[in-house]
Amino acid sequence: MKPIYITRRETFNAAHKLRRDDWSEEKNQKVFGKCSNQNWHGHNFELFVTVKGIPNKDTGFVLNLKKLGDIIKETVIEKIDHKNINLDVDFMKDKMSSTENLAIGIWEELEGYIGDEGGELVKIKLVETQNNFVEYFGGKEPF
Amino acid sequence: MKPIYITRRETFNAAHKLRRDDWSEEKNQKVFGKCSNQNWHGHNFELFVTVKGIPNKDTGFVLNLKKLGDIIKETVIEKIDHKNINLDVDFMKDKMSSTENLAIGIWEELEGYIGDEGGELVKIKLVETQNNFVEYFGGKEPF
Amino acid sequence: MKPIYITRRETFNAAHKLRRDDWSEEKNQKVFGKCSNQNWHGHNFELFVTVKGIPNKDTGFVLNLKKLGDIIKETVIEKIDHKNINLDVDFMKDKMSSTENLAIGIWEELEGYIGDEGGELVKIKLVETQNNFVEYFGGKEPF
Amino acid sequence: MKPIYITRRETFNAAHKLRRDDWSEEKNQKVFGKCSNQNWHGHNFELFVTVKGIPNKDTGFVLNLKKLGDIIKETVIEKIDHKNINLDVDFMKDKMSSTENLAIGIWEELEGYIGDEGGELVKIKLVETQNNFVEYFGGKEPF
Amino acid sequence: MKPIYITRRETFNAAHKLRRDDWSEEKNQKVFGKCSNQNWHGHNFELFVTVKGIPNKDTGFVLNLKKLGDIIKETVIEKIDHKNINLDVDFMKDKMSSTENLAIGIWEELEGYIGDEGGELVKIKLVETQNNFVEYFGGKEPF
Amino acid sequence: MKPIYITRRETFNAAHKLRRDDWSEEKNQKVFGKCSNQNWHGHNFELFVTVKGIPNKDTGFVLNLKKLGDIIKETVIEKIDHKNINLDVDFMKDKMSSTENLAIGIWEELEGYIGDEGGELVKIKLVETQNNFVEYFGGKEPF
Repeated sequence: MKPIYITRRETFNAAHKLRRDDWSEEKNQKVFGKCSNQNWHGHNFELFVTVKGIPNKDTGFVLNLKKLGDIIKETVIEKIDHKNINLDVDFMKDKMSSTENLAIGIWEELEGYIGDEGGELVKIKLVETQNNFVEYFGGKEPF
Repeated sequence: MKPIYITRRETFNAAHKLRRDDWSEEKNQKVFGKCSNQNWHGHNFELFVTVKGIPNKDTGFVLNLKKLGDIIKETVIEKIDHKNINLDVDFMKDKMSSTENLAIGIWEELEGYIGDEGGELVKIKLVETQNNFVEYFGGKEPF
Repeated sequence: MKPIYITRRETFNAAHKLRRDDWSEEKNQKVFGKCSNQNWHGHNFELFVTVKGIPNKDTGFVLNLKKLGDIIKETVIEKIDHKNINLDVDFMKDKMSSTENLAIGIWEELEGYIGDEGGELVKIKLVETQNNFVEYFGGKEPF
Repeated sequence: MKPIYITRRETFNAAHKLRRDDWSEEKNQKVFGKCSNQNWHGHNFELFVTVKGIPNKDTGFVLNLKKLGDIIKETVIEKIDHKNINLDVDFMKDKMSSTENLAIGIWEELEGYIGDEGGELVKIKLVETQNNFVEYFGGKEPF
Repeated sequence: MKPIYITRRETFNAAHKLRRDDWSEEKNQKVFGKCSNQNWHGHNFELFVTVKGIPNKDTGFVLNLKKLGDIIKETVIEKIDHKNINLDVDFMKDKMSSTENLAIGIWEELEGYIGDEGGELVKIKLVETQNNFVEYFGGKEPF
Repeated sequence: MKPIYITRRETFNAAHKLRRDDWSEEKNQKVFGKCSNQNWHGHNFELFVTVKGIPNKDTGFVLNLKKLGDIIKETVIEKIDHKNINLDVDFMKDKMSSTENLAIGIWEELEGYIGDEGGELVKIKLVETQNNFVEYFGGKEPF
């Protein structure tokens, strides 16, 4: 019985802004800098979803990575790709669209769908730019 | 006298959409697909600017690549980074914000500034996603 | 009238070997080294297809890159992805499956389909490993 | 006493298929999709091997990374590079050649050789494509 | 209360050598190989700094990644970029400039500055080449 | 007769500085910035060598890419890898070690060795950092 971790990468392109309308322009600038631009900006996001499980004896798979890709596409990518995170994405409504909150939101969307296919969702990595990414383990703290 | 080509990479993140208001929703969908989303989407763009010239005897430089980076930042990146290409960028006003048109627009912004520092602007490469990029040689057709 | 170059990347995974049955094992080893392994080996290939044209006034596109991707998938990727280049790919029958020959074969498959959509096929780049790639300009020699 | 983790990357190119001869063509297609192609397909694999240890006072090394590279090459890469995983690789005989099973097989090959040089084998990461990878911690579950 | 991990990447270019003057040329060659070259060699280093924390309710940030970048630049990059690690970097004086020791040194430089801005420094990843990197968790052993 | 272009990538790590001893510290700083650091800095260089030719009928090769790699290693990499470009590399003596001059120097080292094996050396690309690279076509100006 050898638990192993499999990861699927999917990508999406989206617009967003980091801006609070209940704050002054000055405070938005100070806290969010150019990310607060009123007219939005955007990114090519890379999403890595990690599932832990025991390889099936017949297939050698924890979970077919193509199937994992399909689940991610259906539950997340179709809702967010070529969309505006602040305006178009139901699971981000009334939240700041920081990479942190987006990763947590994606986890919550995916969570219910992974168990059905075998394996356990254990990590989301969300890359916003080559310099910035976040990792979320469902609230666990491995380090 | 050995002409050589030097390239500087700079990056920017921006929102845009590909959509014509003088077209129906159906036609926009048919031609531009999900890129026509009313509420915008966005990308991490990579811009590569190539200058041709003869290395200076004293420095070995065609043009100091840091200086080339500064020119690109001042003439292009500051106008477009964390902006909306359709709404915020003066040199893209009244143009479709395709990667093709954006590359040509960037060439025209840069063109007047390169000669002053030595070397000749010969190529713009603009990468929109890992799967899509354009190259522009100022209208020349090397191949 | 500003000709510009657009490139679409698609990927495929395939098996092949470089081996001549009309040569001795020793000669195969000497010329092809470990690439001559009787039982095949394989690669993740990256294919870059470049089309030259004038951006359309209404769309800003030389050719919709998604459409270009669809053409590449239909005429090339479906025939070669998760296949054996030597055994399964009709356009490589009776040819050595070198990266050179594969790039030329892909050009010939694509060639007839690009003109219909606007633009002219001008370059194929085929990346076999991070250390090895070939570029083919349809027999032209830009440099 | 500061434990630290060092990682060495090596690469190999190999052919394989995911197919059970005791299953019908239909079932193979349903479960393994195009990975079940009778005539094989292949990949450029990236292998990352992580060793944990305390830096040596004289050298600053947990383990010389070049030496770690040599161990990986001798015990793994030479057996699998430019080979057919299903037919040519002794440690994968009678196993499904899934990325999961391959990572576990590589761990078992390497395991006995790391301790001799200092440090403890703690992780294998095996990247099959840009979208798919697995990580194995020897059966441990850090998260 | 959902702890999440954010990572910032910064880069620097530096010279160093791995060589002990209290050892013979032969022993230096044997242990350090070409890294012992008397006249130095160098690398483009990539530094990834990971901070753990709870996203702030108002901003969605654990810590503004731009601010994290500024802290890294001020406390580490300015001391080491375009420098000689053995000769110019105060926090590496009298230490072997192995990637291991450099990562630990960087951790110790950064450690005192992260808490002030929120979040807890939990990991340093230092990439020396595409084949070699180290990870340091402040002495903790997550796996 | 279909000329095609093949490219081999090799890497090296080296130290250098951009500094003229016949200039004041101030002038060195002004022209070369932090690259003028007296005690050197360094890079991971990537070298791409492109050869043009007709695929051989028997092999499908313009030139065996492994053989091209061996030529590059013997004539260039062994002289420069883990070396100081200013002090240790014969073909860079009495030249400024700019990326431009280094690319031209590498071309001149390689030039005599490519013809013997078939094909014609047509391009050197030398990548110094992710943001800076040069391309040299032996003095030709394809664009």
